Amino acid sequence: MSILVVGSVAFDSVETPHGKVDHVLGGAATYFALAASNFTSVRVIGVVGEDFTPANEKVLTDRGVDTAGIEHAPGLSFHWTGSYVQNLNEAKTLGTDLNVFAAFQPKIPAAYQDSEYLFLANIDPVLQAQVRSEMPKVKMVCGDTMNYWIADHKANLLKVLKELDVLLINDGEAKMLSGETNLLRAANKVMEMGPKILVVKHGEYGATAFFCDRSFIGASSVSLPFRAPALPLDEVVDPTGAGDSFAGGFYGYLASQPELTPAVFRSAMFYGGVMGSFAVEKFGTERLQTITREEIDARFQLFRELSHLA
Amino acid sequence: MSILVVGSVAFDSVETPHGKVDHVLGGAATYFALAASNFTSVRVIGVVGEDFTPANEKVLTDRGVDTAGIEHAPGLSFHWTGSYVQNLNEAKTLGTDLNVFAAFQPKIPAAYQDSEYLFLANIDPVLQAQVRSEMPKVKMVCGDTMNYWIADHKANLLKVLKELDVLLINDGEAKMLSGETNLLRAANKVMEMGPKILVVKHGEYGATAFFCDRSFIGASSVSLPFRAPALPLDEVVDPTGAGDSFAGGFYGYLASQPELTPAVFRSAMFYGGVMGSFAVEKFGTERLQTITREEIDARFQLFRELSHLA
Repeated sequence: MSILVVGSVAFDSVETPHGKVDHVLGGAATYFALAASNFTSVRVIGVVGEDFTPANEKVLTDRGVDTAGIEHAPGLSFHWTGSYVQNLNEAKTLGTDLNVFAAFQPKIPAAYQDSEYLFLANIDPVLQAQVRSEMPKVKMVCGDTMNYWIADHKANLLKVLKELDVLLINDGEAKMLSGETNLLRAANKVMEMGPKILVVKHGEYGATAFFCDRSFIGASSVSLPFRAPALPLDEVVDPTGAGDSFAGGFYGYLASQPELTPAVFRSAMFYGGVMGSFAVEKFGTERLQTITREEIDARFQLFRELSHLA
Repeated sequence: MSILVVGSVAFDSVETPHGKVDHVLGGAATYFALAASNFTSVRVIGVVGEDFTPANEKVLTDRGVDTAGIEHAPGLSFHWTGSYVQNLNEAKTLGTDLNVFAAFQPKIPAAYQDSEYLFLANIDPVLQAQVRSEMPKVKMVCGDTMNYWIADHKANLLKVLKELDVLLINDGEAKMLSGETNLLRAANKVMEMGPKILVVKHGEYGATAFFCDRSFIGASSVSLPFRAPALPLDEVVDPTGAGDSFAGGFYGYLASQPELTPAVFRSAMFYGGVMGSFAVEKFGTERLQTITREEIDARFQLFRELSHLA
């Protein structure tokens, strides 16, 4: 079933201990769509400038991503400059040139109205809320956010959280949003804000799903969380987009399944980790451009072997 | 089969957000022995002062721990004062009164010579090496250490590492010991120093075992690590001893099994997490004093449900 994703399509200039790239294709919606496209059909709502070339678009369309919802505006595309030289686990932002993204007004093509899964990538919660309200019939809504919106646009963010089935954020964001330092208490507070399920990403330590309403995934009322591992990697070439690739693998797999069950949800958490582990192997979206479903499923088995008793 | 543990038997004065306790029974060997005693017989080598009462000793003997190797010396027992008020994940040491522990010279009773499993808790590596050399016939040697020995006694520590089958440390210690910031590279470097297996504890994120020589656990040469989860807890009353309790659960289970296989090793990693999760539920060793094997196995199943696809 189709996923509609709204978010940034951008260019990134990134330096890591492994080297440096300049103006490579990036953005949350791009990583999400490339990762999710291995599982199901994906449609993108975003905006790009005149520097976005047919070759850039081809990266998405070659993987079956529907780019009809990407608006082309006069000016330059969103450009992010960051460094992981000091710390591979956290980007140091050196520059954020919003360019055409500053005036982004998501427009949903009529052909996208039948999308059953909606993903609200990390953008202004006002825009997230607007897109959500224009897609009232979706089967599931999943969203992301970041510290900037939590700190300075909390009222708007809280409106979006009420509308979410699943919120995907990292440890620091969960603690910041809840004001709690204990992860489980933080998760419970965040779920009181709306999301039925909270997925907290722990970077190299994997991810944990917390359930407020497990009936949503067809389970009993027992509220035990679920932890998925991350693969220990000896080389992280470029961490950019790991979280968005996790989201794409997670949500793409969910959307590909006829029914949402606890087992499907657990596999989705594993596929999230799998796609995140691939994304960081090369700079930018390079690894996601060539990946095969066979490679993905082989790594899924690796994740199982990594974490299962037998 | 019997485990011989050498390490500190001490008193702790601890403050956490949940309260404060003064001079309660603690020490690495104590936590280790209490945790391991649920699985196999445990013998302790340590030293205590005149403040160590029969009631203190009874805490150990009531759980079947053999305390004949605990030497009683004139003076006071080792006393540690720490606070977790600012950060539940890392103790702030407020005082370390070594007392009788300063002149500790481990003496191994003749009756302990047939111990098949040796655990070298976190003490001066010179003493660890001495005990190890006096127990040449053990089936397995597992050890712990800490940043102090890594920073200031590295040459002595390196001699001990050569003798270890399994080293159990935390993330920060693995990175400090190796000089690597990447966990997998750190693990590989540490294993070049001697240990066949390195278990890295990640606190609330669980633990990872890295294998240099998997034939040691009866496996093929594939060197995929193994990750065990930790249970998300909404209340950590007192983190003191969590790592030593992990070690006790891990090693106690290993020693209780007739053969070391990959499946046994994996279960041992889970039992480590299980015992760590119990230890932090109450102050000091309180929770470990009353725990039953039924409670332990029920939580083991919880850890499985927490982390397994089906």
